[in-house]
Amino acid sequence: MTGLVPAGPDLLDRLRSALGPEALRPPEPRYLEEPRGRFAGAAAAVLLPRSTAEVAEAVRLCAAARVGIVPYAGGTGLVGGQLATAGPLPVVLSVERMTRIRDLDLVDGVLIAEAGCVLADVQAAARAAGRLFPLSLASEGSARIGGLLATNAGGITVLRYGNTRDLCLGIEAVLADGTVIEELRRVRKDNMGYDLRHLLIGSEGTLGLITAASLRLFPAPAETATAWVAVTSPTAALDLLATLREELGAAISAFELMHVQGLAFVAEALPQVPLPPDAPADWRVLVEAGDAAGAHVGDRLEAGLGRALDSGLAADALIAQSEAQRAVFWGVREAIPEANRRIGAISSHDIALPPSRLAEFLARGGALLAGVDAGLRVNCFGHLGDGNLHYNVFPPAGQGRAAFDAVRGAVTEAVHDLAHALGGSIAAEHGLGRLKTADLERYADPGKLAAMRAIKRALDPAGILNPGAVLARW
Amino acid sequence: MTGLVPAGPDLLDRLRSALGPEALRPPEPRYLEEPRGRFAGAAAAVLLPRSTAEVAEAVRLCAAARVGIVPYAGGTGLVGGQLATAGPLPVVLSVERMTRIRDLDLVDGVLIAEAGCVLADVQAAARAAGRLFPLSLASEGSARIGGLLATNAGGITVLRYGNTRDLCLGIEAVLADGTVIEELRRVRKDNMGYDLRHLLIGSEGTLGLITAASLRLFPAPAETATAWVAVTSPTAALDLLATLREELGAAISAFELMHVQGLAFVAEALPQVPLPPDAPADWRVLVEAGDAAGAHVGDRLEAGLGRALDSGLAADALIAQSEAQRAVFWGVREAIPEANRRIGAISSHDIALPPSRLAEFLARGGALLAGVDAGLRVNCFGHLGDGNLHYNVFPPAGQGRAAFDAVRGAVTEAVHDLAHALGGSIAAEHGLGRLKTADLERYADPGKLAAMRAIKRALDPAGILNPGAVLARW
Repeated sequence: MTGLVPAGPDLLDRLRSALGPEALRPPEPRYLEEPRGRFAGAAAAVLLPRSTAEVAEAVRLCAAARVGIVPYAGGTGLVGGQLATAGPLPVVLSVERMTRIRDLDLVDGVLIAEAGCVLADVQAAARAAGRLFPLSLASEGSARIGGLLATNAGGITVLRYGNTRDLCLGIEAVLADGTVIEELRRVRKDNMGYDLRHLLIGSEGTLGLITAASLRLFPAPAETATAWVAVTSPTAALDLLATLREELGAAISAFELMHVQGLAFVAEALPQVPLPPDAPADWRVLVEAGDAAGAHVGDRLEAGLGRALDSGLAADALIAQSEAQRAVFWGVREAIPEANRRIGAISSHDIALPPSRLAEFLARGGALLAGVDAGLRVNCFGHLGDGNLHYNVFPPAGQGRAAFDAVRGAVTEAVHDLAHALGGSIAAEHGLGRLKTADLERYADPGKLAAMRAIKRALDPAGILNPGAVLARW
Repeated sequence: MTGLVPAGPDLLDRLRSALGPEALRPPEPRYLEEPRGRFAGAAAAVLLPRSTAEVAEAVRLCAAARVGIVPYAGGTGLVGGQLATAGPLPVVLSVERMTRIRDLDLVDGVLIAEAGCVLADVQAAARAAGRLFPLSLASEGSARIGGLLATNAGGITVLRYGNTRDLCLGIEAVLADGTVIEELRRVRKDNMGYDLRHLLIGSEGTLGLITAASLRLFPAPAETATAWVAVTSPTAALDLLATLREELGAAISAFELMHVQGLAFVAEALPQVPLPPDAPADWRVLVEAGDAAGAHVGDRLEAGLGRALDSGLAADALIAQSEAQRAVFWGVREAIPEANRRIGAISSHDIALPPSRLAEFLARGGALLAGVDAGLRVNCFGHLGDGNLHYNVFPPAGQGRAAFDAVRGAVTEAVHDLAHALGGSIAAEHGLGRLKTADLERYADPGKLAAMRAIKRALDPAGILNPGAVLARW
């Protein structure tokens, strides 16, 4: 990342000539902010290409001028990957005008989306064709395909369908020298050389800019069954998952864990959100299964929950009897991140743990935090089926988070150290962005880190692609 | 790949000192042959390390001496990836003494296998624990995990469970300088930097040597249903798949297509193999579905096949009524590659096509071959659910393949050109090895090829890892 220069008027003139005057705008505030308000970005201009060819031309011009490019999709990232906070003034390249669904083929089971397509629009297009595009997460109404791929986003259906990378058969991308790679494959088996698709996915725009992707479509489940279950511990929740798997096999699509602290935050911060009846246990699981009509997922979910209640694994269980009741269950789950935001966390953690280490993590994590302040509150929720928890730490009731600014770093480090020691990931589904570049240096395997740097030098020697994200130095 | 030197006695002495005398052997013929007998390899010695540390030490010594290393796992590869046919005399590094299953954790759903584990042993270990490791292919009795990952092998369950890469949560690997990367993750969500796992998987040992992997385990289906269906065309087979998906959702684990030419080859070359009753159509499908007991996959398969028979989509259908009958169906499918070998193909093709282009491929492919010789026979079979076909061309009945040596190259090129033109892959599940390095140059996206070369230079600048495989030059 040496040798970059600030974007100057000459480059902006060249970009304007190449892409047209409407493709270059001053940076509105929304391009320089992020949802949690922890970073403030800077940019000389926002580029709004309409096509892959225009992206390539913009990259070529920036490469020639040695100016950094910050890729911008939905702007929903939580780790500052989408805004430059330091370094020579870059340009932002937004894919918001590249929103075409280029194809949807039912025989191939493929939808080809440009990077600017909003996830909800892709879901809707699949649904209209009688298929399912399963990726689903809180920001689906604004997150865009390019950003979802760049961060390899997770969400609530990973248990069954995998991460975003697993839903992508091929990509079209622009490399750091403006070369376009056109690999919008429609086949599930392809071993024609190194898998650049998987290398670019999850690289957060630092190795190439994904401009379009061929995405996998799935049969839409004809029948869905949803339940809200009270359990006494995460270990009980894992046992419940094992029991339900015996009944439901691969039909379980979501298995979300919530601590009652999260329900209390929703009640406090979002009182208009209806809550299911209370139950005598500290944890809740939202489980959903779906399959073809003949698979009787409703009966099987009921049978599994019956076994769990009989054996004492579950303290209480409600199966949604209507779409409205299902919406109540999901509404609570979806309200938790917003409630967290309103309560105001000291420190948020996007971690994944081997399920076998989960109980140990929670016990030791609780002890660590008690050592900082006995009143600290934890709202732990997440995608238990994947071992992915959002372990968010809040000030004692009645206190603001500002009072804890001094310990935030120590809290974050202690939680991350613990997760790492237990074989977990400290960047499960949100990416590294600019928030966790030091964490990468601290926790990554040194050989892997060295290889990452060598790859970055090989594919982006001038360092123009999303400078400062993922790798702070290389 | 410049600057390599032949393995000389000094290096062999150093390797013997470091790894012990029993870890260095003269190359027996089996290390220098491959199943189809198209390549003959050469090597100064075979190294047999017992541990990752010994692999790393061997790599460091070879790197210092600038001697190539040809990694060897099960030796079942069909594209010559496992033997050196040209260049300075290398050493072979076999993982056959690294066969430990380091862990099997039911809560995490993970099995950690060393690279030398034979696939059948991993399957058996999973089965003994009440789980399924779904990877399954013809050579599973001898193929080893390291080679399966290096080639990202496919097989018969990709439709449901994905390719080998999709079954791997993490790897341990040795890079070209002897660095060990220890990333045996047990979590499904991890975005700690670039995905080296996916980069090394499928790189055929040219970027690093995978020494162990954490593999995903799945619930073992309690009930399995298997059918043998006669259909009139591959298009009808695709329609049958769509119909069965409506009934069976995600429960379909295999959907294998066979032309009756393959059955005739089995009858001719392997007359001891029992065949199901004949049926009035040119194509057969072997379909299998599995799920939990309450999912009634047998009933649903019957319902789907009933619909297919009623609508004329299927000409005939047999559901296996016993494990013995299921074994007959699978026995035919599994005998086809061996029958092919005995008949003697002119040219074999491991291609994948977008399902929507399949009929066009077969029509145009047939016309192309008729232009060479009207008597040529095609045995087309494969994993239709993935679009992966083995399209193998045989001499006219009564003629040997030697008579067609002169046209082999033209036949291969015509078939590959056609598959590529239709958006297909010419290296679907067997890899590139040394057989298809020119194909890579011919068919790969030029930008991708340049990026591959840059990555190779970055990670293995001296070119010691599997020289001559995948990239002939870089």
